[in-house]
Amino acid sequence: MRCEIITIGNELISGRTLDLNAWYAAEKLTAAGLQVTRITSIGDDCDQVSETLENALKMSQFIIVTGGLGSTDDDLTNEIVAKVLNRPLCLDREMFELIRRHASMQGVAMNPFLEKMAWLPDGSKMLSPEGKACGFSLVENEARLYFLPGVPEQMRYLIDRIVIPEIRSHCERLPVTRELTLKVFGLSEPRIAEIFEDLRGRTGKALLGFYPHFPENHITVTLTDRDHHVVALEMERIEKAIRDRIGPYIFACGNGSMAEAVGQVLKRRKWTLSVAESCTGGLVGHLLTAVPGSSSYFLGGIISYSNQAKIDVLRVSPGTLQSAGAVSDETVREMAEGVRQKLKTDLGIAISGIAGPEGGSQEKPVGTVHLGMATVEETFTRKYCFMGSRRQIKRVSAMMALDWLRRYCNGDPFLPGL
Amino acid sequence: MRCEIITIGNELISGRTLDLNAWYAAEKLTAAGLQVTRITSIGDDCDQVSETLENALKMSQFIIVTGGLGSTDDDLTNEIVAKVLNRPLCLDREMFELIRRHASMQGVAMNPFLEKMAWLPDGSKMLSPEGKACGFSLVENEARLYFLPGVPEQMRYLIDRIVIPEIRSHCERLPVTRELTLKVFGLSEPRIAEIFEDLRGRTGKALLGFYPHFPENHITVTLTDRDHHVVALEMERIEKAIRDRIGPYIFACGNGSMAEAVGQVLKRRKWTLSVAESCTGGLVGHLLTAVPGSSSYFLGGIISYSNQAKIDVLRVSPGTLQSAGAVSDETVREMAEGVRQKLKTDLGIAISGIAGPEGGSQEKPVGTVHLGMATVEETFTRKYCFMGSRRQIKRVSAMMALDWLRRYCNGDPFLPGL
Repeated sequence: MRCEIITIGNELISGRTLDLNAWYAAEKLTAAGLQVTRITSIGDDCDQVSETLENALKMSQFIIVTGGLGSTDDDLTNEIVAKVLNRPLCLDREMFELIRRHASMQGVAMNPFLEKMAWLPDGSKMLSPEGKACGFSLVENEARLYFLPGVPEQMRYLIDRIVIPEIRSHCERLPVTRELTLKVFGLSEPRIAEIFEDLRGRTGKALLGFYPHFPENHITVTLTDRDHHVVALEMERIEKAIRDRIGPYIFACGNGSMAEAVGQVLKRRKWTLSVAESCTGGLVGHLLTAVPGSSSYFLGGIISYSNQAKIDVLRVSPGTLQSAGAVSDETVREMAEGVRQKLKTDLGIAISGIAGPEGGSQEKPVGTVHLGMATVEETFTRKYCFMGSRRQIKRVSAMMALDWLRRYCNGDPFLPGL
Repeated sequence: MRCEIITIGNELISGRTLDLNAWYAAEKLTAAGLQVTRITSIGDDCDQVSETLENALKMSQFIIVTGGLGSTDDDLTNEIVAKVLNRPLCLDREMFELIRRHASMQGVAMNPFLEKMAWLPDGSKMLSPEGKACGFSLVENEARLYFLPGVPEQMRYLIDRIVIPEIRSHCERLPVTRELTLKVFGLSEPRIAEIFEDLRGRTGKALLGFYPHFPENHITVTLTDRDHHVVALEMERIEKAIRDRIGPYIFACGNGSMAEAVGQVLKRRKWTLSVAESCTGGLVGHLLTAVPGSSSYFLGGIISYSNQAKIDVLRVSPGTLQSAGAVSDETVREMAEGVRQKLKTDLGIAISGIAGPEGGSQEKPVGTVHLGMATVEETFTRKYCFMGSRRQIKRVSAMMALDWLRRYCNGDPFLPGL
């Protein structure tokens, strides 16, 4: 069963926008056991779209098309499909109603541009699970075509909710494919490659992959077999083999995040948390509060960007700031203890560092970051030397702080292991 | 002059690897004034590559092909090109020597797999500036083809050093293309479409595009002409026409961010800023501190996630929290004034809301967000009803807070206009 993906938009072929839609669809289709044979990106151009569609219809059973469904003049997909497949445009009442409702929620009256979106090629089936995103599908001879919006959130929603399940249901005895992603923090890519040298590539029925996602590294295991049971057993065996080697470095699997992992252990321990952030500027708080329900363990934080804020709000001693500097073990110790007391939490985390690009010195170059963690019993501190851009240094610092929490709460090997 | 890009590799169509090569080439070609008409990704498959190449030769004057040049069995590009163009493979002595030298530097003796890479289709010209990367080009009828390695660093090196300068030299009087992006906040996509209805699509020599980038909307103007001067003048005219209509909603052009815009006006005003964040959890601080040099105006903030933190750190009155609730104009007023006093800044921003998915009520549904801003003279507050996921509500709330600052400091129409 051949699938192909066509993405439409001038912004794609001009290089203005990176084509994440094709990538997402390709990954999901492959993971579902289907074979993607081609990805084509073209502009909002009638001839190009016609030619590409005609060609695809000759080659593929499943064709995913994204983009060109919007209300502006350069959104031409519906018209072109109508022409190429010789199916006149018909007003889809249901689609019209959905668009009207959405527009009115944004205070916009229905107009010809919006109405245009509801004129679909004859025989189309509107795709709109729970009205959250809108596309349409149609069947032409042997081929099944899916037309999805170019807006990534909507496109992803429809791929996951409609396209993949539908395509799977039309393929008899598709092999079972399962993919497992283990997310690793604190081990470099070459280190991981070294540790798993003997398992690289195919190991039995499984395909192992290693992918950097700064500052994380992801290990993927892909298993394909006709037998559900074989896949499940083999996956279990391989996951265990990986965990035996690098267990404490794995912070999540699948879609889990580091902040979710931290939330889970904090909830289990019934501990509360506060943060004192200097160079990360609020990023740790932002990551923690991205998790629904985080208010049950995260009570708040102080973004002590200036020295004065460190003194006034966190009660860091001016003497410490003067003698050791704002970026030092001494300062993060007082920051961590200060925020823990101020917010009356079980744990207090503190971060102070030089994110760059300016502000570095011989003694404390850009990337110098000190972390501190105050607990009921004691306070830990440590200096790190990170590399990268301002953005990367902020990110890896925040992740390291969260990883401290995760390891501490799990009772895993802590500072020395990192 | 039509250009197209073909990227070859199983990892691309399976979604395992994001195709950054096509994106890079497209951007560079567009910036050089060339028109990319199509990007095609295919697997390491003989039939697919043949068909795609044949099709490209019918359509385009310049064809960039990446991938499939390596030494492994699935690197088939050279052989396929030889077959499709009917040009037997010939050993390129220079290429052979280069490969041998590189291999010996890595302690590897020459072998048939490496030698394979030096057998190029008859008439090929090796591309290897300073021996740093290796590809080849050839001319077939009217078309010029460039075959580049899939390794991103090498591919980019050859694009910049060889491909773009050569293509430009073969195009007489290439038109000048300039693109301008204006970033808009506070106007929905349908609203923007409405405002610019008369300028939709082509307006004179310019092409207008509207792209949503939640929670921003981007307007792009693309101008092409043979005359530099015409492009510059016309761009100025169109930018002015757009600014005349929605000036205060435009917060940045090009790569600028909202936080940078805020930084610029704060610096100009010589004002300092602090933030009190509840539902955004540190995101405003994170965005502000993503800007290098932000420490000169951003002094810090309080992430008052719990009510107790609002009382203890920001001195919000327990009575206010009880009577009006944490998500109210009254509370954000006290939060904004509290943080401004605590951190001794000119301006204090406060955000409190319900990001969801839980925590909403009939009276205050998910998406209810109150903003407050304390200035030297007075304190402003306002309630918003945002829509979307937890992530989106946090993001649009943070952006709105930054936009308040930008508008206030610019002396632009403020609350009523939003």
